[in-house]
Amino acid sequence: MPFRLFQNYIFRNIMANDRFSPDAVRQLTAAIAVRAGVKKKDAAILADALVDADLHGTSTHGISRLNIYIRRIQKGLIDPKAKLAVERGRGAAMAMDAGNGLGQVQAVKALEKLAKKAKRQGVAAATIRNSQHFGALSYYCNLAAKQDLILFATTSCEPAMSPEGACQAFFGTNPIAASFPTGKGWSVKIDLATSIVARGNIIAAQKKGQPIPLGWALTPEGEPTTDAAAALAGTVLTMAGHKGYALALMVEIFSSVLSGSAVGPAIGSMYKNMDRKQDVGHFFFLLDIAAFMDVAEFKRRLDKAIDDIKGCRKRAGVSEVLVPGERSHQKAQQNLAQGIAIDEATQKELKTLCEELRVKYTLTPNA
Amino acid sequence: MPFRLFQNYIFRNIMANDRFSPDAVRQLTAAIAVRAGVKKKDAAILADALVDADLHGTSTHGISRLNIYIRRIQKGLIDPKAKLAVERGRGAAMAMDAGNGLGQVQAVKALEKLAKKAKRQGVAAATIRNSQHFGALSYYCNLAAKQDLILFATTSCEPAMSPEGACQAFFGTNPIAASFPTGKGWSVKIDLATSIVARGNIIAAQKKGQPIPLGWALTPEGEPTTDAAAALAGTVLTMAGHKGYALALMVEIFSSVLSGSAVGPAIGSMYKNMDRKQDVGHFFFLLDIAAFMDVAEFKRRLDKAIDDIKGCRKRAGVSEVLVPGERSHQKAQQNLAQGIAIDEATQKELKTLCEELRVKYTLTPNA
Repeated sequence: MPFRLFQNYIFRNIMANDRFSPDAVRQLTAAIAVRAGVKKKDAAILADALVDADLHGTSTHGISRLNIYIRRIQKGLIDPKAKLAVERGRGAAMAMDAGNGLGQVQAVKALEKLAKKAKRQGVAAATIRNSQHFGALSYYCNLAAKQDLILFATTSCEPAMSPEGACQAFFGTNPIAASFPTGKGWSVKIDLATSIVARGNIIAAQKKGQPIPLGWALTPEGEPTTDAAAALAGTVLTMAGHKGYALALMVEIFSSVLSGSAVGPAIGSMYKNMDRKQDVGHFFFLLDIAAFMDVAEFKRRLDKAIDDIKGCRKRAGVSEVLVPGERSHQKAQQNLAQGIAIDEATQKELKTLCEELRVKYTLTPNA
Repeated sequence: MPFRLFQNYIFRNIMANDRFSPDAVRQLTAAIAVRAGVKKKDAAILADALVDADLHGTSTHGISRLNIYIRRIQKGLIDPKAKLAVERGRGAAMAMDAGNGLGQVQAVKALEKLAKKAKRQGVAAATIRNSQHFGALSYYCNLAAKQDLILFATTSCEPAMSPEGACQAFFGTNPIAASFPTGKGWSVKIDLATSIVARGNIIAAQKKGQPIPLGWALTPEGEPTTDAAAALAGTVLTMAGHKGYALALMVEIFSSVLSGSAVGPAIGSMYKNMDRKQDVGHFFFLLDIAAFMDVAEFKRRLDKAIDDIKGCRKRAGVSEVLVPGERSHQKAQQNLAQGIAIDEATQKELKTLCEELRVKYTLTPNA
């Protein structure tokens, strides 16, 4: 049952959708969260993070996740009023406990604390334990970039991926992200899972009855497979084999081992384990550009690098060399104008949440 | 001519070799460097870093590089007496200038300065500009791990790799490394180029007249190729396509853009450009484990993660799941006992250097 829930969730993201005003979605999201017990200020953070993901074209980490967060709050698996505690600290370092609160809310609060330290010390780093799925890492990176800070961020996630040579899910898709301010009105944005492909793509292939490319996943017995169903019962492969394995391990150590969170298979699944908390860990490392170089010079240098990259000779059939962050910025501009796309299943969930929590459903699709 | 030099250098590493006492090689290396103008203490650092690479099975970054370093010193392209200067600093941040000195020497000195800061502040980070090829990143990471510090390190390198969509060498193979102390007598060691394969493998295939796998490289026109010669004239591909591209860009920004070093194609080639300095940049980020968690607890937690990974169900034909750092530790133990392998071409270079610099050649192969 929980797994079907997860499948339905992924499938909805590949369907055609209505579009809605980002402001209206933000307001409704915050209203729902408040009725579920989240403080007003915290609900605004959650709403902004979710809508930002939808704006940037990462709807897998957007408003479609609200329902599961609320359900987990209702089951006592997320504390909507959790405090963020600094458990240990020295100079530019902080070890924090998210108190099993909402991932987005605690991450933004951690970032605020850390930004003050980084502005004073030039750099600062924090581990955050006892947290949850916290959406798109690039949200936090972009918040930092707006303050001329560079954030390098990682998070552990529920198990999905096997170490090279093994065929048991140990690691999550363990992403790495960083964002760098430019003079171009958008930030260079690195944001990638260390898996070869998102598990959602395999679920989508299964729904359509299509095979998956060899090299994406293994059966539970560890055999390479093109069968999506066998792949879903097995594990996703790391990107670039042993290199992705090494990076996934690095992410796991920074985010989970060093933070004191659950490690590997001990991390709870958001959809499958409706009986225990996730205990995810995050890692934030923040640099104040001005401590290393004048910000204007940094931006001038990065802008030149971007221009040089875009000016490289192109491969056949390629019309433009894109720089990471460029496309998602363009998408955000489009979505700001057109509204964000929300699929039917998510709309239905929002309506049900509104009914249950006695919140007025205020969304009307853009014409 | 310089390119042939480079080809010869790569080819030698795939031949059968004599073995020598690491101590004897260290002493001879230091003696040669001193006669080339390097200070005694600095020569010892260089010798230790090179021999350490050979010990760990990374002979591409070991003693085989001594000749080119000395030749570049002789041509005035490396300053053997360079001072390391802190140009800007605040709290836990330092922007350093390596003064065009030997990469290994300046990196070790930078790490020493940074370690003091990290012990005080919990974390510390440094950019290092105006440097060279500095060998294996994992050497610095392992030095840190021995002090219960975690080092995350990146470096830019001479151009070899094209951005996704382009077919011009912009990035170096831009590696990422980190090392984490355990209770097992060896450190977890992440050390990977963001390219799909080392350029040396393509050169080796060309020498043997063998094709290379599709997906390793592009021709200068940007066409995928299995022809090693066409690949060598073109560019190596990033690991995992756009993901490796994004990581290579992150490495370039941390190491070169933020440090003030040359960026992308402006970086000099060690073998091809015997008329200008390299101007490579490095980035070091150091964490004191004790600022986040008791060191003993961290090691206990990491040891358990290692045991759990190694205990995972194995894929068919796999006898053991290895953890990054495990194999190179085993290799180092073997090489400590058996001696390090040095190929004939490198032995010949060492003899020539000894003759020219009037150093007694003291190496005799182990029986």
